[in-house]
Amino acid sequence: MTLHQFLWRAENVFGDQEIVSRTHEGIHRYTFADYGDRVRKLASVLDRRGYGEGDRIATFAWNNHWHHELYFGVPCQGAQLHMINILLPDSHVQHLVDDAEDAVLVVDPTMLDALEAAYDEAAFDSVELFVVMGDTVPETDLEPVTDYESFIADGDPDYEFPDVSEDQPAGMCYTSGTTGMPKGVEYTHKMYWGHTMGLLTGELGLTARDTAMTVVPMFHVSGWGRPFATLASGAKQVLPGPNPEPEDLARLVESEGVTQSAAVPTVWRGLLQYASEADPDLDSLEYVLSGGSATPKGLIERYREDLGIELVSGYGMTETTPITHLAETIPSNVDADGDERTATRAHAGLPLPGVQLKVVDEDGAEVPWDGESLGELLMKGPWVTTEYFNAPDKTERSITEDGWLKTGDIARVTENGYTDVVDRLDDLVKSGGEWISSVELENRLMGHEAVAEAAVIPVEHPTWDERPAAFVVVEDDATADDDLRETLRSFVAEEYPSWWVPDTIEFIPAVPKGATGKFSKIDLEDQYVDDELRARVREQAPGQR
Amino acid sequence: MTLHQFLWRAENVFGDQEIVSRTHEGIHRYTFADYGDRVRKLASVLDRRGYGEGDRIATFAWNNHWHHELYFGVPCQGAQLHMINILLPDSHVQHLVDDAEDAVLVVDPTMLDALEAAYDEAAFDSVELFVVMGDTVPETDLEPVTDYESFIADGDPDYEFPDVSEDQPAGMCYTSGTTGMPKGVEYTHKMYWGHTMGLLTGELGLTARDTAMTVVPMFHVSGWGRPFATLASGAKQVLPGPNPEPEDLARLVESEGVTQSAAVPTVWRGLLQYASEADPDLDSLEYVLSGGSATPKGLIERYREDLGIELVSGYGMTETTPITHLAETIPSNVDADGDERTATRAHAGLPLPGVQLKVVDEDGAEVPWDGESLGELLMKGPWVTTEYFNAPDKTERSITEDGWLKTGDIARVTENGYTDVVDRLDDLVKSGGEWISSVELENRLMGHEAVAEAAVIPVEHPTWDERPAAFVVVEDDATADDDLRETLRSFVAEEYPSWWVPDTIEFIPAVPKGATGKFSKIDLEDQYVDDELRARVREQAPGQR
Repeated sequence: MTLHQFLWRAENVFGDQEIVSRTHEGIHRYTFADYGDRVRKLASVLDRRGYGEGDRIATFAWNNHWHHELYFGVPCQGAQLHMINILLPDSHVQHLVDDAEDAVLVVDPTMLDALEAAYDEAAFDSVELFVVMGDTVPETDLEPVTDYESFIADGDPDYEFPDVSEDQPAGMCYTSGTTGMPKGVEYTHKMYWGHTMGLLTGELGLTARDTAMTVVPMFHVSGWGRPFATLASGAKQVLPGPNPEPEDLARLVESEGVTQSAAVPTVWRGLLQYASEADPDLDSLEYVLSGGSATPKGLIERYREDLGIELVSGYGMTETTPITHLAETIPSNVDADGDERTATRAHAGLPLPGVQLKVVDEDGAEVPWDGESLGELLMKGPWVTTEYFNAPDKTERSITEDGWLKTGDIARVTENGYTDVVDRLDDLVKSGGEWISSVELENRLMGHEAVAEAAVIPVEHPTWDERPAAFVVVEDDATADDDLRETLRSFVAEEYPSWWVPDTIEFIPAVPKGATGKFSKIDLEDQYVDDELRARVREQAPGQR
Repeated sequence: MTLHQFLWRAENVFGDQEIVSRTHEGIHRYTFADYGDRVRKLASVLDRRGYGEGDRIATFAWNNHWHHELYFGVPCQGAQLHMINILLPDSHVQHLVDDAEDAVLVVDPTMLDALEAAYDEAAFDSVELFVVMGDTVPETDLEPVTDYESFIADGDPDYEFPDVSEDQPAGMCYTSGTTGMPKGVEYTHKMYWGHTMGLLTGELGLTARDTAMTVVPMFHVSGWGRPFATLASGAKQVLPGPNPEPEDLARLVESEGVTQSAAVPTVWRGLLQYASEADPDLDSLEYVLSGGSATPKGLIERYREDLGIELVSGYGMTETTPITHLAETIPSNVDADGDERTATRAHAGLPLPGVQLKVVDEDGAEVPWDGESLGELLMKGPWVTTEYFNAPDKTERSITEDGWLKTGDIARVTENGYTDVVDRLDDLVKSGGEWISSVELENRLMGHEAVAEAAVIPVEHPTWDERPAAFVVVEDDATADDDLRETLRSFVAEEYPSWWVPDTIEFIPAVPKGATGKFSKIDLEDQYVDDELRARVREQAPGQR
């Protein structure tokens, strides 16, 4: 079970199928057969330079055909592909290159400045060569450096790949944890193999009839595995290149007849907005997969009603290669429409064949699948990791003795296995032995017209252990006073039990944010949680229970 | 990668889905959740009796829910399921039970007489218990004996399966070779896992929207893996029970809304015939898979034109778990109709993702994929065996050093990988370094109105090594004379090169047949090939080249 089998199928059965790539130079187009020749040239050059098992070839790039060639060429040759997230802060990029000891770093020319900014001599010590995608080397301080086309120019298109064990690492990505340094996760050939087959199954299973546009960045958890799945299935592959705007995506759908795509909800919100203004022809598009964060029901509705496109949630994480869940239909709801259909599609999803899950409370006991009970989501399966790279302590903390991954996500599951992730375990407020989801409270508060931003954090409490405190930024036209406080408390209480209502609501000018734009709850706590606030919470809380 | 993962999904995600089973007692119906409970009861009883790794539980049965429970219950408990082909001659059944050392033998009550007839004290020495499917034990000489319901009655529906390695044998079937004794092939959990995922992919990939009727016998190469695939995908499963007639199948399609089914061409011919007479409602049926022998184009056409059903060929063998090929469409022919579409569906098929193939000549050199060049089909992949059970000599003969299975099938492959199997290597006539397919000659001859049966075998020749000799049974109203000989020669020469034309055409009263009704070429040679015939061939042949 190695990636060679899928490349073989792409080259031999679907040699005429196309890969369309939007690059910094325009639209590039070639067949799977051409692709295969170039993948072999690349692999032969890596081989000739002595790379193989244990060597990491890193990428710092958008979705294009060069990146795609590395996806198969590197692991099939026996080396390991390390996809660096180009959106990480410089200190994280340095940590990644240093920790992974990357030997070669292949960079998108549009990301060259960013890489130069992140460059650090000590951290990049292992890098023997920089390769710039394209056929020219722009002005750069990085060295030694070459361009990708020169790099593979004298490669062998008939190169025979060596035997590679299915248990050998094929790929590697790092988590983008909001606390601490990212953790490395390695993917063996077999993990990718199982994951690829998973993406070929079910209602959204890719087939040779599909044209699949991979919008999710290939630097983000192996592009959700779609670069592998398209080749294995014979689907036409469309790669939208650097920083695609909604208009770029719409044009590619129109010109290439895209049937399926995958990206984060923000992308789909942007495309919807563009479609309502420019009215592009998106008729070919049947399914779009939305993941990375929860997909709002309103977006799912508008896709179905305005565009005739089925927007389907998915779920996964760096540790799970990543896709474990897709919000597919089951016999009892396959014919549902309206709100019921929307609710189905909005779940994080059903576990794919091969994946097993359970949800456990603080004592490790399973909670029922009743659509309500919350617990930590644990998963297990052929493409769920059983260790972190270079970090036995993190492995011990996150993997149980019998091989379950403790995801750190708080979830509830319906009786049929539809999973919803409501929060990170670290973001929960543990009040009197029960859990309160800070994310749900934040979403509720931000649903009020007077609220621009809201963050909720736990504050220690002598009786209940922790109680929620809310920090609210009001809209320009709203007045931050006690009346609004009471209004917001009532607004929360309409939807949630009274003991979920935050014990204090603090009005602040802005929520502090981290490098990726997410709320920084650590900074929030440092800035605002003092003895006075704790006292306020202490006074208020008992009355709430 | 074990079967537990698929059972888990069936029980937890698709617990409400149904298994419908036509038994000797009538229609039986229960849910995947009920099924799971009974599978666990069965497994707990096996466990309590001390069975596990290395123990074989054999079946001798049609397709019903008891058989299906054994499919998951036995391997998930850690023991190995051995499915005995109930159509084998007694001597073969004895060989199988003896060779596999089956510990328990579970028998369909409708097959009890046949099993008693095959019983041999020495060969059945290892059998500790006979279990009769159902809740009563009919009058029988077999002992000790119990009925299935009593056997599992005090089992534990909450039984937790032990950890089972993915490399542990889960199943076992024997080839039904026409020469010599059947050979055993073991299937590990991982092989079944990969094969199951393969059946969930592509145009015919099973999903929870399907109702799948498994007509192919579950005693025949793991029911083509469909009992596993239905549970993994959440498809409703319909099992047609003992010796189903076309009318039984049509009624099940009507009452259960069957969308997909799988069987040998003979079954589909029977259903077509029945449909033309009784006009059942087969509208729900979208795809039927046809395998086990070549699917005639005429049958494919009539299914599409008369019934609106897509009849699709598949291919595989005992050594390959078994499905390696399905005649799916690719982008260049997805919209084709008429003859082109029929031709696509009539190929043995395209390799499934994971499977690799090559076609080699007598020297082991690859022949081109040009739709014409013939060679032996070699295959490799996660569910292609790398050894025969208990037979290192056969393994050495059939598996190359780098792990390719020499199928013994002669095939040609189009440039896109559509494979056609034209003959068994053993049935080829090797004439002057070129291959002549005896099966193609037989089919051509039997296509003439005067011919009832035709068999072609190689006869040794001093110059050409071998030359084809044809043995023809004429229709009652035809005259077996020299005129007919010349007519048949010309008839063959219209379609094939002149050197394919048999050098002698012998008229015989009947073609000798083996136990399964196939032509016995060994008997044919014994009875008819003598010095006089060899001389006739010797005289004729040189002129043909």
